[in-house]
Parts: sequence; C-alpha cells; structure tokens
Amino acid sequence: MHGVLESCLYATDLETAKRFYTSVLGLEVLTHVADRHVFFRCGEGVFLIFNPERTCAEQTAVGGSPVPLHGTKGSGHLAFAVAESELETWRERLTRLGVEIESDVSWPRGGRSLYFRDPAGNSIELAPPRIWGLSES
Amino acid sequence: MHGVLESCLYATDLETAKRFYTSVLGLEVLTHVADRHVFFRCGEGVFLIFNPERTCAEQTAVGGSPVPLHGTKGSGHLAFAVAESELETWRERLTRLGVEIESDVSWPRGGRSLYFRDPAGNSIELAPPRIWGLSES
Repeated sequence: MHGVLESCLYATDLETAKRFYTSVLGLEVLTHVADRHVFFRCGEGVFLIFNPERTCAEQTAVGGSPVPLHGTKGSGHLAFAVAESELETWRERLTRLGVEIESDVSWPRGGRSLYFRDPAGNSIELAPPRIWGLSES
Repeated sequence: MHGVLESCLYATDLETAKRFYTSVLGLEVLTHVADRHVFFRCGEGVFLIFNPERTCAEQTAVGGSPVPLHGTKGSGHLAFAVAESELETWRERLTRLGVEIESDVSWPRGGRSLYFRDPAGNSIELAPPRIWGLSES
C-alpha cells in the first residue's frame, strides 16, 4: 500500500464543478464524460468527481467486468496539500474570485488550514502537510 | 497545489471500519476518537473516516475557529495505490480474509484494479498507478 491513488467527491452539476476546480484551484482535467464524471490529475494521484445520479444507478463494464456502483449524497471533504508559504496567496486568490473562506483554523501542533465550499457544497481545505507531521515534498 | 493531503470516507461503525483498515489493509492508525473519527497515515497523506452522524451535526472548534460540518450517506469510493507486482498477493490476502472481490477490471490502457467493499459499503479499489499513466514511486 503506497498511498491513495484516487480520491473522490460527488457533484450533480459537473460543468460547474469543472469550472471551479480548473479556474479557481488550477487543476488539470484528465477526462470529462458529460454528466457522468470529471477527473483531474493531482500530484501523485488523481481527484475524481462523479455525478452520483449516474454512478449509483448505471452499471458500466470494462472488458466484461462490472465497475462497481458508488455515489453519495451530502457534503464530502477533501484537503489539498499546499506549501505553507503559499497559504496567504491562496487566501487572496480565493477572496478575489469570490470564494468565501468558511474557516481558518490554526492547529495546536502548528500549521493552518483554509476551509471553503466547492459549488456542490463539499468542504474543501487547503493545508500544509505539517498539520499531519508530514513534510512538504 | 501539491496533491491530495486528506482523502475521506464515512462510516457509522468506526470500530468495525478501524478493524478492517488495520487488519485487512494494514494501515497505521494516527488518531481514533470513539464514535467520531478514525484517521490513518497513508503514503504522503492521510486517510480519514468520519462518522457522518457526528460530523454533519456537531460543530467543533479549534482555537475559536469552527471546523466546517461535512458528512455523506451512500457508498463513497477510494483507490489505494499498490505495486503491480503485489496485486495477486492482495487478491489472495483478501480472499483468505473473507473479503469478496466484487470486480477485477483490466483497463484498456493496461493495468488492473481489484474492487471490494469496506464494511460500511464503500467501494474500495487497489490499483497500480499506471492505470492513470503515473509511475510507481
């Protein structure tokens, strides 16, 4: 087990999600299948947004093997790693682009997290790895 | 943006989830707060399981800053990166431990994924990074 390869969130409006994650957070789109999913490259893994109305209900198959159904309702959570030195630049960028900072938490062990919502209501966090005792690499 | 730092799933029975992710998948527990969350170290990031009945409803605060509410219902999805050479060992281990392989997908561009469910019904995948054109590191 070498780490997380695919991290997922869900959104029914994928066009709006795609616009948000590319234009606000600067992620690179890998694949977009209209109304089903939009996938992004992110560091050593991928970040996947699925439309749960499709992935909960429609069985797809690859080479005869079914891709298991999944999908959630409600607000998921995901944190992106940023350098500690970039956190203020991110705050200014989010504010300039009209994204409300929902919270700004200073952790007891050091480091801070910025929290905001994506258009689907997921709770997104930007934080330096040291909030978990991990190094920036 | 350097990658995903925190990937989350949800489970109401955290004891069972903890047992599964430690004894079956071999993850190392970072923190466990009974009935609220269990956190695991995973590669260059962390994997967080929250009880959505708590994190949807109970506002907590750190140093006066609220930690935003989140939580989902339904089956989430997460893939762990494994070396391609370890995939058969994982299949044997899962089978020996009574975890049903729900699907085994051979991707058109190469590489295979094993899919199974965690005790909360989340769709878990083990896959080599090359299914996304990424290298094993």
